[in-house]
Amino acid sequence: MTIKVFGHTASTYSLVVLHVLKELGLSYELIQLNSFEEIKSPEYLATKHPFGRIPSLSDDGFQIYECRAIARYLINKYQGTKTSTVLIPSDVQKAALVEQFISVETSYYTQHVGKLIYQLIFKKIHGSEPDLKVANEAREELVKTLDVYEKLLEGKDYLTGEFSLADLLHIPYTFFAINVAGEGDL
Amino acid sequence: MTIKVFGHTASTYSLVVLHVLKELGLSYELIQLNSFEEIKSPEYLATKHPFGRIPSLSDDGFQIYECRAIARYLINKYQGTKTSTVLIPSDVQKAALVEQFISVETSYYTQHVGKLIYQLIFKKIHGSEPDLKVANEAREELVKTLDVYEKLLEGKDYLTGEFSLADLLHIPYTFFAINVAGEGDL
Repeated sequence: MTIKVFGHTASTYSLVVLHVLKELGLSYELIQLNSFEEIKSPEYLATKHPFGRIPSLSDDGFQIYECRAIARYLINKYQGTKTSTVLIPSDVQKAALVEQFISVETSYYTQHVGKLIYQLIFKKIHGSEPDLKVANEAREELVKTLDVYEKLLEGKDYLTGEFSLADLLHIPYTFFAINVAGEGDL
Repeated sequence: MTIKVFGHTASTYSLVVLHVLKELGLSYELIQLNSFEEIKSPEYLATKHPFGRIPSLSDDGFQIYECRAIARYLINKYQGTKTSTVLIPSDVQKAALVEQFISVETSYYTQHVGKLIYQLIFKKIHGSEPDLKVANEAREELVKTLDVYEKLLEGKDYLTGEFSLADLLHIPYTFFAINVAGEGDL
């Protein structure tokens, strides 16, 4: 078994896949992609990710892209084989609540925090000025989402009661928001 | 078994759930929600959807919201019991390819077509003018996505080769785009 991850350790979506691999106790090889040119090359588009994004994963020749799809694939195939960590429960209702929170994360959390981080961090890295109007709008939406999270998390240590893929998907962007963008007050 | 859908027949995400129920051969009761006030009421937020959206589904008292999570729940629980339609295959690699295309649909298709439809249709319904700059930007992104789709669909009748939840998730917005917004040229 050889798992290869095509990505970057500063990419939030790549980090999600690396966290999943670690939780499942799987060994892997990381192929670090450093340039925009690499992921937009005809070879990368044809064999790794047709939309030119990271991460992409190869498992003994089976190629899969998009971090949430990669996570579900690894969980379906390997959960319980190396560690006892449960990222998606086998119980149909418990699994549904994890999927429900993954959809919340995608639509109401990552969409806004992603815009904020892009303006405050990545634009600076690439030498352009952040659009503060866009950043402020994203921050406002994020505050609304976090107000609902407060209620949903009442009396809970984890989003659905037990640790799951839903929690894990929040980690990289939250880390960047607090530790790199200085948005810990949120 | 009583399945209740809280939604609206003009809501694309509600239509996804109704399509899934039909494909799985399940009977249901539709509770049509007609006003913004209804889905933002304290009762609705507390019991149906904490972010005040539609659809939400109740299955013998088990409440679940967000259309893709509802779809996966219904498939996990009922697929194969009433009809032979397979929306998510049991094979791990085939299921991964369906999940991969659902992620593509969410991030590169529905995000853009949703913005376009909002500007061209829903803003008019609510009596305000469409922002043509936003609509044009969304249309440009959509064209890029559809160019990649052309390549991915070469020689295929369905997105992953066989009919699946990934195809079904594209239907309502595509219907609106072609038949209501007049964007069939795309």
